[in-house]
Amino acid sequence: MPFIDAVEAHDIRFPTSLSMDGSDAMNKDGDYSAAYIVLRTEDPELSGFGFTFTIGRGNDIVTATALQRAVQLIGRDVDTVVNDPGALYRELQSDSQMRWLGPEKGVVHIALAAVMNAVWDLAARAARKPLWRLLCDMTPEQLVDAADLRYLSDALTREEALAILRAQEPGRAGRVAELEARGGYPCYTTSAGWLGYSDDKLRRLLQEAVDSGYRHVKLKVGADLPEDRRRLAIAREVIGWDAKLMIDANQVWDVPEAIEWVGALAEFKPHWIEEPTSPDDILGHAAIRRAVAPIGVATGEHGMNRVLFKQLLQAEAIDYLQLDSARLASVNEIIAVYLLAAKFGVPVCPHAGGVGLCELVQHLSVFDFVAVSASLDDRVTEYVDHLHEHFTDPCDVRDGNYVLPAKPGYSAEMHQTSIDRYSFPDGGYWSSRTRSDAED
Amino acid sequence: MPFIDAVEAHDIRFPTSLSMDGSDAMNKDGDYSAAYIVLRTEDPELSGFGFTFTIGRGNDIVTATALQRAVQLIGRDVDTVVNDPGALYRELQSDSQMRWLGPEKGVVHIALAAVMNAVWDLAARAARKPLWRLLCDMTPEQLVDAADLRYLSDALTREEALAILRAQEPGRAGRVAELEARGGYPCYTTSAGWLGYSDDKLRRLLQEAVDSGYRHVKLKVGADLPEDRRRLAIAREVIGWDAKLMIDANQVWDVPEAIEWVGALAEFKPHWIEEPTSPDDILGHAAIRRAVAPIGVATGEHGMNRVLFKQLLQAEAIDYLQLDSARLASVNEIIAVYLLAAKFGVPVCPHAGGVGLCELVQHLSVFDFVAVSASLDDRVTEYVDHLHEHFTDPCDVRDGNYVLPAKPGYSAEMHQTSIDRYSFPDGGYWSSRTRSDAED
Repeated sequence: MPFIDAVEAHDIRFPTSLSMDGSDAMNKDGDYSAAYIVLRTEDPELSGFGFTFTIGRGNDIVTATALQRAVQLIGRDVDTVVNDPGALYRELQSDSQMRWLGPEKGVVHIALAAVMNAVWDLAARAARKPLWRLLCDMTPEQLVDAADLRYLSDALTREEALAILRAQEPGRAGRVAELEARGGYPCYTTSAGWLGYSDDKLRRLLQEAVDSGYRHVKLKVGADLPEDRRRLAIAREVIGWDAKLMIDANQVWDVPEAIEWVGALAEFKPHWIEEPTSPDDILGHAAIRRAVAPIGVATGEHGMNRVLFKQLLQAEAIDYLQLDSARLASVNEIIAVYLLAAKFGVPVCPHAGGVGLCELVQHLSVFDFVAVSASLDDRVTEYVDHLHEHFTDPCDVRDGNYVLPAKPGYSAEMHQTSIDRYSFPDGGYWSSRTRSDAED
Repeated sequence: MPFIDAVEAHDIRFPTSLSMDGSDAMNKDGDYSAAYIVLRTEDPELSGFGFTFTIGRGNDIVTATALQRAVQLIGRDVDTVVNDPGALYRELQSDSQMRWLGPEKGVVHIALAAVMNAVWDLAARAARKPLWRLLCDMTPEQLVDAADLRYLSDALTREEALAILRAQEPGRAGRVAELEARGGYPCYTTSAGWLGYSDDKLRRLLQEAVDSGYRHVKLKVGADLPEDRRRLAIAREVIGWDAKLMIDANQVWDVPEAIEWVGALAEFKPHWIEEPTSPDDILGHAAIRRAVAPIGVATGEHGMNRVLFKQLLQAEAIDYLQLDSARLASVNEIIAVYLLAAKFGVPVCPHAGGVGLCELVQHLSVFDFVAVSASLDDRVTEYVDHLHEHFTDPCDVRDGNYVLPAKPGYSAEMHQTSIDRYSFPDGGYWSSRTRSDAED
């Protein structure tokens, strides 16, 4: 195997704030961005690509942090790296000085996600398999060795983790065939429901979603209660009462306010309320869940690490676990969260959207069904139709399903032309930002 | 009032790893560091100084982040800034793009701490008062307006916060006099107990602590159980059984391991076990507390924000709350945590040590006693005798008490010679790092 002989880090930002794509009650003007890492090897045909997602300012900080972590990989043998990703993860995660800046949260953690996402992409490419296939071909022992189980043993021991994986091992091949036969892994769309859209656009996008086969749609709420009631009424008019309607408050409420506001929307029968309050508030989510049942509680896109998810499950605080593929520190931590969720019987419905998150989560959802939960019940993965054109292996969504990725890797590679154009602040787009650029 | 017309950010690192000062089971080789911010005004006599604390690598990232936040203050009127620090705090905290990188945790949060610490230092200097006095002269309404109460209302409403402060308002002057009469605010020392020290050094430092009037000492544990038992036996030999002996595991254990290990040290009658597991694990701390009582549970130096502390209190997870003056986002968030602790009746014993943390926490502890808790029961603030010589107004500890600071400000200003020498990587120390430098 070749050595890793160079690393690149790119601060890539897309001017999404100009079109109000992605607007919600908390995140009003995001420029969807990636702190993007490339691991080059001596073999010009073999590189690893990975990123984490941010919404603009500060992406330079994350990119610089990811680069600091990635340079430690220069000179390492690809074979060693990809054969024991758990060892590399633990080495980087436990850096005795960088750890102080988290620990295991915020900038240092998402920067580690960017680097380890690139490592997993490299591992899948080296094996000439899509990432989901690489994971589904690993033994229970290999998966548990890769997983970060630290601080989890009061909820999930190593033996319990192995038992969950072993129980599903015989059915893996059958479930791959089942997914292929049904057209892929089920998803839902958030494209319709951003706060910044007009009523006409909302109505049109909801109708398109229904026509495209989606059985779940999601609307942003939380800025203004009468407005929310008006928009939810429009949504039910368009999608009817059989399709599932999710609502997402993006953390704008305190706990008592969340309970009151969601109560005032209950007549529209939301399937779940997403991010009703601070993502750190485990006990708050538990209190909201008790108060708003049977409306489900969902959170996780800002779930900082596996210790938070462990507690959300222990406290019976959530009905749906929405892990984020670029906020958790890559597959190593994500395997642990899937195992926790399986132990507690809570469905994982990953967060996606942004830039590139859909490309990543499709692999994770397939892995969950094939090797961990063995269930599609109450499971649906987010999909947003933005920015896929910048990826060399964009996700393929048809009739409300993510079609199983077939190319080697984690689908994380961007086109060089996109990198060149949207690198901040020196890429073509940003260095010559003009009115006509902004409108393209 | 003048305008803020320039900001400076300095990455300052002290080579503490060379002497094993600060070594513990998790943080083996810290280089105590400060991401240091200076707010210059048009008045050459008036500047604000603030910092956050790290332990080495990554301090550049925090410094760069703090600078990005601080530059937004250039051109602002000092009067406006210092008269409504709550408004400025909320503006910076809620930056709609930077928020994604936390939210309210990790690098972006501690960088905000550095900037807002400088703002509070500036406010105290502008008022010609030490920070504790500035806070103790604020009305309950002013304090609550400055405090960050977001996401807390299920545990502490604005009215409850006001009621706590109003109840103690009449006694403020009396308690200032009481503290002055008793020689200051009580503290304990961690200087003796680092893991890297030899038995002889441990014995000598413990004896010195007792001789200096300390009634509490703290030892690091968690690397090796027989070693811990041996060192605790030495400690009890030296300090006897009347003085309080605290132990600190710096997050090395999972929950079941913490319960078992602390049980094996119970015969040495520890006053508290500090950081037994992940700082994020609220429910884990609650489980440990139930299992190891009557040994107390203490945590907080890695407590990321007020939402975490709210839950630690709601879950009855801690006996002692050890907030950190440079990890919480400055006085704005710290006031909220003191009010929460008062509501729940839990004593606050702030974390200190590192570089400059002692200088900051002395102000906070005085404020707590005078204006919030009105109690010294079970309260003792950490003190470590390191690196004070780099500050222009170093803390003055006598007979186990922090003597009340008298100079205007938050005691956060460093000597220019220290900045010049220890700036990384271009300061005199780092640019000419030699064996003789390392030994000085």
